[in-house]
Amino acid sequence: MAAAAAAATIVAAPGGAHSVRRAACPRQRVSSSSSSSASAIVSSFHGVSVSSGGSLSLSTEVSALRALESKGSRRRGHRALVVCKAGPEQRPIIIGLAADSGCGKSTFMRRLTSVFGGAASPPKGGNPDSNTLISDTTTVICLDDYHSLDRYGRKEKGVTALDPRANNFDLMYEQVKAIKEGKSIEKPIYNHVTGLLDPAEKIDPPKIFVIEGLHPMYDERVRDLLDFSIYLDISDDVKFAWKIQRDMAERGHSLESIKASIAARKPDFDAYIDPQKQHADVVIQVLPTQLIPDDNEGKILRVRMIMKEGVKDFEPVYLYDEGSTISWIPCGRKLTCSYPGIKFFYGPDTYYGHEVSVLEMDGQFDKLDELIYVESHLSNISTKFYGEITQQMLKHADFPGSNNGTGLFQTIVGLKIRDVFERIVAREAASLESAKV
Amino acid sequence: MAAAAAAATIVAAPGGAHSVRRAACPRQRVSSSSSSSASAIVSSFHGVSVSSGGSLSLSTEVSALRALESKGSRRRGHRALVVCKAGPEQRPIIIGLAADSGCGKSTFMRRLTSVFGGAASPPKGGNPDSNTLISDTTTVICLDDYHSLDRYGRKEKGVTALDPRANNFDLMYEQVKAIKEGKSIEKPIYNHVTGLLDPAEKIDPPKIFVIEGLHPMYDERVRDLLDFSIYLDISDDVKFAWKIQRDMAERGHSLESIKASIAARKPDFDAYIDPQKQHADVVIQVLPTQLIPDDNEGKILRVRMIMKEGVKDFEPVYLYDEGSTISWIPCGRKLTCSYPGIKFFYGPDTYYGHEVSVLEMDGQFDKLDELIYVESHLSNISTKFYGEITQQMLKHADFPGSNNGTGLFQTIVGLKIRDVFERIVAREAASLESAKV
Repeated sequence: MAAAAAAATIVAAPGGAHSVRRAACPRQRVSSSSSSSASAIVSSFHGVSVSSGGSLSLSTEVSALRALESKGSRRRGHRALVVCKAGPEQRPIIIGLAADSGCGKSTFMRRLTSVFGGAASPPKGGNPDSNTLISDTTTVICLDDYHSLDRYGRKEKGVTALDPRANNFDLMYEQVKAIKEGKSIEKPIYNHVTGLLDPAEKIDPPKIFVIEGLHPMYDERVRDLLDFSIYLDISDDVKFAWKIQRDMAERGHSLESIKASIAARKPDFDAYIDPQKQHADVVIQVLPTQLIPDDNEGKILRVRMIMKEGVKDFEPVYLYDEGSTISWIPCGRKLTCSYPGIKFFYGPDTYYGHEVSVLEMDGQFDKLDELIYVESHLSNISTKFYGEITQQMLKHADFPGSNNGTGLFQTIVGLKIRDVFERIVAREAASLESAKV
Repeated sequence: MAAAAAAATIVAAPGGAHSVRRAACPRQRVSSSSSSSASAIVSSFHGVSVSSGGSLSLSTEVSALRALESKGSRRRGHRALVVCKAGPEQRPIIIGLAADSGCGKSTFMRRLTSVFGGAASPPKGGNPDSNTLISDTTTVICLDDYHSLDRYGRKEKGVTALDPRANNFDLMYEQVKAIKEGKSIEKPIYNHVTGLLDPAEKIDPPKIFVIEGLHPMYDERVRDLLDFSIYLDISDDVKFAWKIQRDMAERGHSLESIKASIAARKPDFDAYIDPQKQHADVVIQVLPTQLIPDDNEGKILRVRMIMKEGVKDFEPVYLYDEGSTISWIPCGRKLTCSYPGIKFFYGPDTYYGHEVSVLEMDGQFDKLDELIYVESHLSNISTKFYGEITQQMLKHADFPGSNNGTGLFQTIVGLKIRDVFERIVAREAASLESAKV
């Protein structure tokens, strides 16, 4: 696990200039680094030269990406700059991810970890039922660990896990604050198997600390600690279709019991979970497709990424023309797609009184051509080389949503988090440097 | 008037290379010439440097255009190449424009002539009721001159001017063919004032010969002579709104008489005029706006430019991504527009069994900002410098349609005709050169 005080990382200084620092670097990590604009870069990566922009044919791009894929992702020495975290001043950045269910093992977190390179695993030699995932750069904790009532306590008091009374926000705040200050914590473990609270586990401050669960933005004190926040908003229709698929088809539950379990959660969900989305920097909405009339299978999705404007270190993605309103069906003369095709929408909007930009994808990718074609038309995606989104999506083609907007936007949010991280590191390193002078 | 055998003109060779020829050039015409791509050119014109692409702010672009406007359009020596028409082998190119009414003095033709520089006027010292307009490069004739029956003859036989029996297609074919072969003709004149056929006028072959009127594509022999063809398709709703405006408000006609006159023309129009649009390389459709529900004032227009694919020397205009389907509302964060705004559509389609690309504009320009912003996002517009469309529209701000899609698309068609002309000239000059070797 990376120690906060002296791990090596990479800083791409704003404006394309690179600042290189060498301090005490006990564990040198080397990554390729280039400030990239989607419109005009030529990058070489993994020994494959790929030039962005309109000059390359689609098939050339696809071949290059395939070659890259087959070479794996080990060698990364190209144009690398190594910067050591400059002592305790380089504090961890804190990311909040609110989602209704699924903790620790979520696809979103695996995509995020993958963007930074390296796999995530539970703490070594610890509780096998730990909800924590640790990689070189990132530690993800599950906020269920801050349940103040275990399964039996909740049953006894008649409260759900969604109810703030079943959660210890004071402890959550104290511990997230400690991590942000570079201090280790002894965090409780909620055992999802037994439903009991297990003995605490030690968590050291990582570069990026992700708190994932039901309430990352519920408590104002915790919310204020977040450097970036995401709300994953699955619409009721899609939630229902997914639950039918999993609980009815795979687990043999009845339709009635599924409906009852959704209905039982809804009041607390609406009261305590849903309102957090107004505080998120990015909301990913998952809705049924509009490409097929009256579709309710929940297989083809319309996914919207709602990006808050004016957030420090975060520039919303756009399609073609920043600030205007565009709908785009890429399938046509240059790109052929199978039914029902792919449709994008981009435009400005307001969301809970905030100015936002919305990027929407309806439909799914059937071929690699489609994915790289779409990537090449998006701007402000914070990639480090041409095709990085496509590479990430290919690498995890087995993850749910790798062929639709959920995978695309999760990957983009991963890149955005890396960008936020690098900007903060660069700024703090610069301010440290100027303090020395 | 330019003599076909030895007038000087400009050739931008395909692919950006310029071929320069100097032959006998009794009347040197000098124009600026550069093969331009909308995405990455830096041009200097009229002493004002303007760089295209996203790097310039909108206000800078607008200032530059205003400066340019105030300097007039005389000096054009920049990057000029002078090429003389290489004798009789350099044959005139023939353009057909089908339109329901209005001949000779049409706005479309004045825009086209203006693109080539220089004003159009009737033949000097000839019949004051001549329908012909002549400029340095272009001669426009009105096909009404080929009426075989005058107003009284038509009345006697009970046929309209739309009826092919009232027109002499044999003579039309012979004379257009003669012009195409570089020969002068003695063309009849239909006098719109008296309704009689006047004595013929002599027409010399120009560089560009435009036949405008009811039937430029009706007769197959004439159609086959056309190098490029346009059909101006005013929808019934708009035609009616315009007629109400002009005949009722300005001329005191009754609503009933207007309806009757439209109804009387309709059968012949549908039989003889309308079917020509399937043969046109470009159809400009003028429809009521869709931005205001149930609008029938005919003031705000939705204009569609339907461009045939696979036409030699003609590359359809596109918006953002060639071959995909896009709708675009430019009004937003970067560009503010007044109600009801502006909306563009672009996409592939089929039209009478032909593959076409459609570009549509709904709404109108209120400010110069809007026009230059839109121009900067269109590709394949065949401009010679950044902002040329805006400059043309500004120069003729008093022409009808200068603030909407009719003016925009007429201007673009003018640029396209110039492009077709230059490509043909370049090709024929090259083939002449290789024949000499």
